Amino acid sequence: MDSIGIGLIGTGFMGKCHALAFNAVKATMGDVPRPRLTVLCDVDAAHTAQKASDFGFARHTTDWRAVIADPEVDLVSITTPNAQHREMAIAALEAGKHVYCEKPMALTLADAEAMAAAARKARGRTRLGYNYTVNPAIQHARRLVHEGAIGRLLHVRGQVDEDYMADPDLPWSWRCRAADAGLGTLGDITCHLVSLLHGLVGRITSLSADIAVAYPQRPMKDEPGKFGTVENEDIAQALVRFENGVTGVLSSSRAAHGRKSLIRIELHGSHGMITFDQERMNELELYVAEGDAATRGFRTILTGPAHPPYGQFCPAPGHQLGFNELKVIEAAEFLRAIAAHTPIAFDFEEGLAVERVIHGFVRSAEERRWVDL
Amino acid sequence: MDSIGIGLIGTGFMGKCHALAFNAVKATMGDVPRPRLTVLCDVDAAHTAQKASDFGFARHTTDWRAVIADPEVDLVSITTPNAQHREMAIAALEAGKHVYCEKPMALTLADAEAMAAAARKARGRTRLGYNYTVNPAIQHARRLVHEGAIGRLLHVRGQVDEDYMADPDLPWSWRCRAADAGLGTLGDITCHLVSLLHGLVGRITSLSADIAVAYPQRPMKDEPGKFGTVENEDIAQALVRFENGVTGVLSSSRAAHGRKSLIRIELHGSHGMITFDQERMNELELYVAEGDAATRGFRTILTGPAHPPYGQFCPAPGHQLGFNELKVIEAAEFLRAIAAHTPIAFDFEEGLAVERVIHGFVRSAEERRWVDL
Amino acid sequence: MDSIGIGLIGTGFMGKCHALAFNAVKATMGDVPRPRLTVLCDVDAAHTAQKASDFGFARHTTDWRAVIADPEVDLVSITTPNAQHREMAIAALEAGKHVYCEKPMALTLADAEAMAAAARKARGRTRLGYNYTVNPAIQHARRLVHEGAIGRLLHVRGQVDEDYMADPDLPWSWRCRAADAGLGTLGDITCHLVSLLHGLVGRITSLSADIAVAYPQRPMKDEPGKFGTVENEDIAQALVRFENGVTGVLSSSRAAHGRKSLIRIELHGSHGMITFDQERMNELELYVAEGDAATRGFRTILTGPAHPPYGQFCPAPGHQLGFNELKVIEAAEFLRAIAAHTPIAFDFEEGLAVERVIHGFVRSAEERRWVDL
Amino acid sequence: MDSIGIGLIGTGFMGKCHALAFNAVKATMGDVPRPRLTVLCDVDAAHTAQKASDFGFARHTTDWRAVIADPEVDLVSITTPNAQHREMAIAALEAGKHVYCEKPMALTLADAEAMAAAARKARGRTRLGYNYTVNPAIQHARRLVHEGAIGRLLHVRGQVDEDYMADPDLPWSWRCRAADAGLGTLGDITCHLVSLLHGLVGRITSLSADIAVAYPQRPMKDEPGKFGTVENEDIAQALVRFENGVTGVLSSSRAAHGRKSLIRIELHGSHGMITFDQERMNELELYVAEGDAATRGFRTILTGPAHPPYGQFCPAPGHQLGFNELKVIEAAEFLRAIAAHTPIAFDFEEGLAVERVIHGFVRSAEERRWVDL
Repeated sequence: MDSIGIGLIGTGFMGKCHALAFNAVKATMGDVPRPRLTVLCDVDAAHTAQKASDFGFARHTTDWRAVIADPEVDLVSITTPNAQHREMAIAALEAGKHVYCEKPMALTLADAEAMAAAARKARGRTRLGYNYTVNPAIQHARRLVHEGAIGRLLHVRGQVDEDYMADPDLPWSWRCRAADAGLGTLGDITCHLVSLLHGLVGRITSLSADIAVAYPQRPMKDEPGKFGTVENEDIAQALVRFENGVTGVLSSSRAAHGRKSLIRIELHGSHGMITFDQERMNELELYVAEGDAATRGFRTILTGPAHPPYGQFCPAPGHQLGFNELKVIEAAEFLRAIAAHTPIAFDFEEGLAVERVIHGFVRSAEERRWVDL
Repeated sequence: MDSIGIGLIGTGFMGKCHALAFNAVKATMGDVPRPRLTVLCDVDAAHTAQKASDFGFARHTTDWRAVIADPEVDLVSITTPNAQHREMAIAALEAGKHVYCEKPMALTLADAEAMAAAARKARGRTRLGYNYTVNPAIQHARRLVHEGAIGRLLHVRGQVDEDYMADPDLPWSWRCRAADAGLGTLGDITCHLVSLLHGLVGRITSLSADIAVAYPQRPMKDEPGKFGTVENEDIAQALVRFENGVTGVLSSSRAAHGRKSLIRIELHGSHGMITFDQERMNELELYVAEGDAATRGFRTILTGPAHPPYGQFCPAPGHQLGFNELKVIEAAEFLRAIAAHTPIAFDFEEGLAVERVIHGFVRSAEERRWVDL
Repeated sequence: MDSIGIGLIGTGFMGKCHALAFNAVKATMGDVPRPRLTVLCDVDAAHTAQKASDFGFARHTTDWRAVIADPEVDLVSITTPNAQHREMAIAALEAGKHVYCEKPMALTLADAEAMAAAARKARGRTRLGYNYTVNPAIQHARRLVHEGAIGRLLHVRGQVDEDYMADPDLPWSWRCRAADAGLGTLGDITCHLVSLLHGLVGRITSLSADIAVAYPQRPMKDEPGKFGTVENEDIAQALVRFENGVTGVLSSSRAAHGRKSLIRIELHGSHGMITFDQERMNELELYVAEGDAATRGFRTILTGPAHPPYGQFCPAPGHQLGFNELKVIEAAEFLRAIAAHTPIAFDFEEGLAVERVIHGFVRSAEERRWVDL
Repeated sequence: MDSIGIGLIGTGFMGKCHALAFNAVKATMGDVPRPRLTVLCDVDAAHTAQKASDFGFARHTTDWRAVIADPEVDLVSITTPNAQHREMAIAALEAGKHVYCEKPMALTLADAEAMAAAARKARGRTRLGYNYTVNPAIQHARRLVHEGAIGRLLHVRGQVDEDYMADPDLPWSWRCRAADAGLGTLGDITCHLVSLLHGLVGRITSLSADIAVAYPQRPMKDEPGKFGTVENEDIAQALVRFENGVTGVLSSSRAAHGRKSLIRIELHGSHGMITFDQERMNELELYVAEGDAATRGFRTILTGPAHPPYGQFCPAPGHQLGFNELKVIEAAEFLRAIAAHTPIAFDFEEGLAVERVIHGFVRSAEERRWVDL
């Protein structure tokens, strides 16, 4: 398979990120099928035409069903609001397309289950956009864990925080309504943490959670004195147990002033510890209980060519990859797996496992008890 | 009251720390009653004699009841193993002495309650050795919170980790037996975290906890092939609710490789955030949502004379206080409160509140449910 | 000008970096002329053909003069070894092309002067690849300095260190021979520091330097027992004076174990301080002498949309740009300036000023005295 | 020798620091002669009486010659302004006393030479208060260097910065007048850096320096509109060569906003690197070029009992020593050396070597050339 036709739905934050990745992936990696930028889709025709030109797409449309019907399109990238994921993904799968869907998977657990069911029956392959999981630093952490560098895993901590909803004066928006946005923090960012831990530790099988709304009412934009109700959580935390018996603690907030992209992970092992923070995504901290006590300490590993596929981007260590380049790695993995019929690290099945956890938070918090997933 | 006679029971880690504090407090602070180092007590006579000479105590004994009976002793410092706190503290209180007791308060919640009951009836004042709470950085954080610098408190995170039990080959010891040591991590270090949060946020009123033993069996020292059972927790975490409705997450481990004295606190407010880590105890991180977005960031505040009572130790900022100097501050506070009959920040009543939390962890974990305290 | 034809000479480290930038720049920025990837050139035909296919170039050649002669080529990117820059750049300028040349400018100061002279006479525009200077964090630092956020500049420190020559057992290579490589550390990395400081502070006008060779002999590869002489410096440092009277200190080493891409800058002002480190290229440290002494501290600013053109890459702050994305910014600036006939931040004239400094290091060190530049 | 009689001259910043050290040293270390706090001296009688009481001195006086004449005084601690060091130290030495003198040694190089000459002829021992050199982290760095942990030393960097003179509006004071204060930054803080490097690397033998006054005029206190001239340097930097041929760079400023006690050292070796910063004085950074490239990194070593004499203060690692505790270590070293007639790490001879360097800065800067020391 020399090339793969791409239909991209959405031109916003993650739509552009997909476009950049498809533009870069062949030049970066070499050994991947070439993505053909076939058709770009968004709701506004003029805007979409402009973006198609900028992004290098051959055609553009405002009809997402046309993307899916397009015979030149092999792979459909879905970067639209969450509420549309289910319909688009299932339609694309039924049309025999590969589906590259941004996270979170869907609005509700039922939606995610329907999507996974469709994927099981489909010829097309699926991938979710959990791009933090392909960071060379994270891939190296996974290797270290699996090689036993820190011994047996004992305990895990995870935090994910941003501050895009930290300002109490931020007006009410669709993000605050469950029918539009589904979950709050859990769907936006906690799911990233869960995706990382499922790869590093194993699946979470039970949890006891608590959730909170920081600001139950937000002012309505341009309607002085009116307020809208915030229907989803700003803050969420849980005690968790993994399938291998490891205990852990997760916490997350979209109202955490000063945090821009913090995803902090601590892996406690019987022989050492690994920590990571996405705000310093090119670094990994490693402590190994070896050697003279007087010279032990957490070491800061800067990623470089020793941490594949960093070397595809730059032959010099410590020069730093960026957020967008994680999407290039992810796209390369997906394109290669499609061409070679090999397993996909984060397909809809894996995505569903993440959804079970984040929706489990809400169930546990509402019932105020431990729940099994 | 010009001077206060000190009887110190215990010459180990914290015994020496008390001795150093009593030697330093008058020279450091000036405005405190002078501690008279009256009598030192420990179990080995020769060792105690030597330490009395080194520490500058006038007399020494191996009979702790003699310390309490000594008419020149006004204040009894108890730095012995936890199992002895109850008997010694109550005897000292009944003898009309002031009692300065190291943490954790006691072996069991019942013991702690008995001690608090004795204190309520006694003439003598009480203080627990939660010395981290008097750190100028922590006192400043408390002021910032109470002045509203970070707005309304929304959420709290706390971690406390050390690695003194992280090595799986470390032999079994009395620390592993409930009858001798009581709790594990919870009594050793989690209590410090709780003591800090009670001061910064308010009292914890309910929690859902999980605890784990990292290494259920440890090799018996000098008995090849034999193993002893570890009866108390290595790892403990909880979701918590504070009296003011704030939610939080606590986690702690004495098996956290690489951590030597980590006590990390995050205070999430509606207008900013404060973080602290005891391993960098002279620093405080503050983020305030003010000013141009392009220049906002967490600032690292180095403690100095602007953070009382730092200036009593050194007139130059950023020169660093040490762990032992926190005990000097604590001792000064206690001596001043005794002399002036003013309230004591961490008396047995406050200590009992901490004990309720750490014993609540065990109850919640055993019953696998939220518990009210 | 809708599009600009690109001829790229070189497919190595920086050749690929240019190719990635030209692939990404239109999709990232929108408002730039579209680069047409016209022809790629390198010495090995098969390799070049493969890279042309991967990078998306329409044609390929092994004859760099053919690139310059190509009527469809408007802009020639030169990413070859330094010894070839002079000939290629002058030929391209004489052919009326725009020239985008990687740093350092040339092998010798005379070469750089000849290139700058050719540029002065040419119709084509020039740009040097000092991509660190376009980092949003650095651009923000420049704004802060110019707006007076840290008051009057008093003093400057700069460090640039890597460890690609730190291993004493690394075999001798062309990098060690002056005729091939020209300068050592000074040409490889010190020039980056100078380029940054010229933008942040002003031009350096005099200096007193010292240079050293860490390992005067290196083993010849595959010739056991034979050694080659290292003809250029591993370590270089200087006291400097800037045109505005500010004093400074620069130091640099390519033999600095553990440093991968460290470029540390300190700008001392009468009202505050700014520091930066390229190994954490998405962060800027700012201290301003304002407000309550108890809350002052260095703040860590994470770059985001408030720091243009970060927002072109990602609408969410703190998500991190990478090294390659700096080249996208640089390419965009060059393409826009060509189209709009506006000034270019780092043309050959600016590049020559950097060369004067790094060659001034050698002169000062050899003559063991202060030199004017 | 069971005990040593102490006469302390000065009750300010460093006077109190000495008093605290003498109060703590026996209890902390055990194996030292007991300091007898014989007599305290300062200029104001009432103040001195109060301090003598607080510090635990048996007697007090306002006549420093009486301290030196006192037959019960064996050791004279001099913590007065620099201008008085020469006269007091020589008088004490001539009276047969041991002299413990705060840094810098004296006002002028001639003064320092006279003091060293007096020490050579005296029976008493001498020690300068370069307390940063006894930090367990620094002692460990010295061991690592001497054991070859980072291979052969290639290059050294050092910085020392504070901001006590950073505010341009700070009024003129005696610190600005050469006749009272001698040197500026060089005498206050650069000397600390030199003291550390002499121990870690070897003696500096030549240098090329530059110095600058940040604010040549300062407002006179309580004299509106009047200004005084600043006669000594705010900023000083130098290229240096050590006796073993190692090159280095030193820089320092007392006008460095935000720096409170920064002393940053980088030791570049052929096999690794060590860095240290006094603002995090309980940490040492170590990089060793060993093991898998993918797991190499700078490790942060937290000092603990593995770094003597930390364990004398606290048996638990990472609990942090403070600035004042460095003086306890220094005092213990001096007392032990006096009792045992063993060499002293930082006697007047070593102090003179430091003075030669800092006065060499001024000579080099004035003559604008390299100078040999």
